[in-house]
Amino acid sequence: MRQGILFVVSGPAGSGKGTVVEALCKAHSDVGLSVSMTTRQPRATDAEGVTYYFTTRDDFENRIKNGEFLEYNIFDGNNEYYGTPKFSVEKSLSEGKDIILEIEVNGAMNVKKQFPNAVAIMLTPPNGEILKSRLRGRGSEDEHEIAERLETAKKELALFPKYDYLVVNEEGKVDECAELIYSIIRAERQRIIYTKPIIDNFNL
Amino acid sequence: MRQGILFVVSGPAGSGKGTVVEALCKAHSDVGLSVSMTTRQPRATDAEGVTYYFTTRDDFENRIKNGEFLEYNIFDGNNEYYGTPKFSVEKSLSEGKDIILEIEVNGAMNVKKQFPNAVAIMLTPPNGEILKSRLRGRGSEDEHEIAERLETAKKELALFPKYDYLVVNEEGKVDECAELIYSIIRAERQRIIYTKPIIDNFNL
Repeated sequence: MRQGILFVVSGPAGSGKGTVVEALCKAHSDVGLSVSMTTRQPRATDAEGVTYYFTTRDDFENRIKNGEFLEYNIFDGNNEYYGTPKFSVEKSLSEGKDIILEIEVNGAMNVKKQFPNAVAIMLTPPNGEILKSRLRGRGSEDEHEIAERLETAKKELALFPKYDYLVVNEEGKVDECAELIYSIIRAERQRIIYTKPIIDNFNL
Repeated sequence: MRQGILFVVSGPAGSGKGTVVEALCKAHSDVGLSVSMTTRQPRATDAEGVTYYFTTRDDFENRIKNGEFLEYNIFDGNNEYYGTPKFSVEKSLSEGKDIILEIEVNGAMNVKKQFPNAVAIMLTPPNGEILKSRLRGRGSEDEHEIAERLETAKKELALFPKYDYLVVNEEGKVDECAELIYSIIRAERQRIIYTKPIIDNFNL
């Protein structure tokens, strides 16, 4: 069995990465997310290590200090931590599962360092005008805040040469965008590093 | 407009590369073959530089000597030359067309040298047994000739590490195989070298 492949989908705020990755995972059961860790209470439908890894606030914060997370954040709604532990991604890959990580740009660069074989896909809005209008659409109309978001987006977009692929998320075409990313996933699976065993087993 | 991308589909005899590339070009009009050169007489439906480049035997043989062909052969049926001139591929690429070249393994290695950005895809039968039976199926039952073909196939398969992708042509699944190659084509179009202009035109 081959190693799983890690796909990192990233992009500036307003690129729609969350929506696209959700559509992709819904359409294709052969790609999934890694299991996250959280401090929230388990529910009846939860299963440790399947829906989430559950832990205490203290333990989570210790893991943050130890650099065990590829990314983490506190969810506004319930003030609980959610994060992607490195060990969880490693476990999925060693089980041969192809994993998608949807993550902001700085986090993506960090993942690339820790997983050199990861495939990095940058998602962008179709153009600068649409990016600006999507940033404006996010609640606040504070011009200073919007200018700051734009500055962040500029810096993030400037990192595109460190990515392997760039995909445009056109207006109203989430499924098409997800399918294009799925093409990249299908293609990467055919790379020689993963298909080498086919030839090795040819036995001529 | 971006440069076209050159895809080289290759593989040992019995890999089914001709059938698969035909199915691919039939299903997807956004990938095509380059215009070949031939010594056969033009027919009423032919158009110079569109269906073929037509030339004389002398000129064709001069071009062979000058190394102007990426590959060429003499077709048994009419004893005429057919070849892929380098200039024809260059023309298509400069017009932004994505081109597929279906070519035997040594020719593919030569193309990779002349077009370093070419994407090389090796097509194989599912396993050694099926390769052997496909080689046997090709007319002659001369055991010596079959052994020779097998030796050639072995040497060709051994070159797989020089390829970018490996795709298995499963029995009776030509269309699926063509679609998998089309995924590779779609993916390669999203590579940063080709999508860079999107970011350059962002104008934030």
